[in-house]
Amino acid sequence: MLPKFVEFREEGPREAFQMEKKIFPLEDRVAIIDALSETGLKFIQVGSFVHPKAVPGMADIELLCSKIKKKENIRYNGVWLNKEGFDRARKVPGLYLKGDLLFYTSDTFARRNNNRSADDINADQAQLADYYLANGLQLEAAFIFPAFGCNFEGDTPLSKVVNLAYDIKKISNEKGFKLPIIGIADTMGWANPEEIKRRVGAVREILPDARISLHLHDTRGLGAANVYAGLEIGVSIFDSSVAGLGGCPYAGHKGAAGNICTEDMVFMCHELGIETGIDLEKLIEASCLAEKVIGRQLTGKIMHSGVLNRH
Amino acid sequence: MLPKFVEFREEGPREAFQMEKKIFPLEDRVAIIDALSETGLKFIQVGSFVHPKAVPGMADIELLCSKIKKKENIRYNGVWLNKEGFDRARKVPGLYLKGDLLFYTSDTFARRNNNRSADDINADQAQLADYYLANGLQLEAAFIFPAFGCNFEGDTPLSKVVNLAYDIKKISNEKGFKLPIIGIADTMGWANPEEIKRRVGAVREILPDARISLHLHDTRGLGAANVYAGLEIGVSIFDSSVAGLGGCPYAGHKGAAGNICTEDMVFMCHELGIETGIDLEKLIEASCLAEKVIGRQLTGKIMHSGVLNRH
Repeated sequence: MLPKFVEFREEGPREAFQMEKKIFPLEDRVAIIDALSETGLKFIQVGSFVHPKAVPGMADIELLCSKIKKKENIRYNGVWLNKEGFDRARKVPGLYLKGDLLFYTSDTFARRNNNRSADDINADQAQLADYYLANGLQLEAAFIFPAFGCNFEGDTPLSKVVNLAYDIKKISNEKGFKLPIIGIADTMGWANPEEIKRRVGAVREILPDARISLHLHDTRGLGAANVYAGLEIGVSIFDSSVAGLGGCPYAGHKGAAGNICTEDMVFMCHELGIETGIDLEKLIEASCLAEKVIGRQLTGKIMHSGVLNRH
Repeated sequence: MLPKFVEFREEGPREAFQMEKKIFPLEDRVAIIDALSETGLKFIQVGSFVHPKAVPGMADIELLCSKIKKKENIRYNGVWLNKEGFDRARKVPGLYLKGDLLFYTSDTFARRNNNRSADDINADQAQLADYYLANGLQLEAAFIFPAFGCNFEGDTPLSKVVNLAYDIKKISNEKGFKLPIIGIADTMGWANPEEIKRRVGAVREILPDARISLHLHDTRGLGAANVYAGLEIGVSIFDSSVAGLGGCPYAGHKGAAGNICTEDMVFMCHELGIETGIDLEKLIEASCLAEKVIGRQLTGKIMHSGVLNRH
């Protein structure tokens, strides 16, 4: 069941600089993105269009977008949480915009992340889909998060994930579009390998035509095991961060590990005979640059041990 | 196929203090072991009886053994690489000695680790078994290492592992004893989850009555995935290190991650519904103490994020 090809969607630049207290020099942040552009990655999330007071590290996102050396065939993506953010993002030349629908399982997390109730946000998604389509965006994915557990509300009942999958199906049927990807996000590091299989399986039963993507954090050290569990059931899209950058600024635990580490997971895929289109050595160079910029040892492993020396 | 109960064999005290350049105060090293004794761990490897010039951090192993507060039902174990080491270990009161046979797949690694050729060491093991039996030790395990790959010789051919498993079977048949455990060691972090399944499966076919133990390092970030792959095929003994301490001083890469982290893997087992007999909160306390003693952030994850808050 292992997939033949896995797509990694790089989220390090957003994940890192939205949570770091310090504001890092623009040229350093640009240099990391430019280094990532040399690795074979086809999707790089460069930042988010959010209020500068809420996330000071993203205040100059427009300027950053203008400075990066954009390469053809790479989708440079930015995220937003509301229409104001979208209106900013759409003005940025060369940015790849996609219409993502975001469904929250946790009301507390929704309020912390987006200042609104989960029910309100979820109820808006059908209308938001219309809005994106009217504005010429492709609807690419619907995300369910947190899909495993929440630091504020505990375990996410499987029924909540299932009900949201049914809501997504209903919206798709009513509106007559198909969402090619359903993202299942373990925003706060609650997943374990068996729950990965259970929840991916449950969502697939409801939405069999969609591809599943997994957004995983290594908060509690199970990231690699969760990726492997996903691979075992054929999941072929993973969000990840170079050097394991990131974390979630609203998740409520400091000092914890960030997202699954792109180069470590690319290494795992290559070892398993799965193609990724990524040059691992170049990715490690980008990772080492990120560590130099951040100025402390990052959690990525292979960047410190080196790849296997097969002679 | 997941096991109902997994035994973790704690190797942190040995793995850490054999590789750290600095000599840490005896009372700090004793305090870590004493903290580990409160966690429910039943096997704690306190150090090794090796030449003080080769491993200065183990020079006072006898004194350390005399200072730890030994609890009943815990096996405090020490390792040795030759008869001189064994002669020192057997003089230490309260230490649990077991006769382990060590089979090397890599000649270069054998020479670096033990100053002798792999063939010489492997050929000695039958005689060594007699010697241990004559000295009243139980023969507990035969280890094959490195069983996946070697930083000096590259991928370990599966045939080398298989041939050593046949050698072990032959010795057992000739001598009329059964080794209850076959240890498969990924000393330098070359394993991946599929190879775990392949190699464990191959050894089990040859030695179906033995339990398999896995000794894994997280050198390249696949530790958790490799543990999960082992669990999926019913492996129920893992060597590990609190806080992810350790590494191998002769493996030839500095700054790399150490062994799989005991508390992160205990956490995974508990999340998967597998019992371990370990009090995770107490283990995290021991882990935090180890970090304080070592004086830098260690690689364990859950010690920094905390366990799941299920309310």
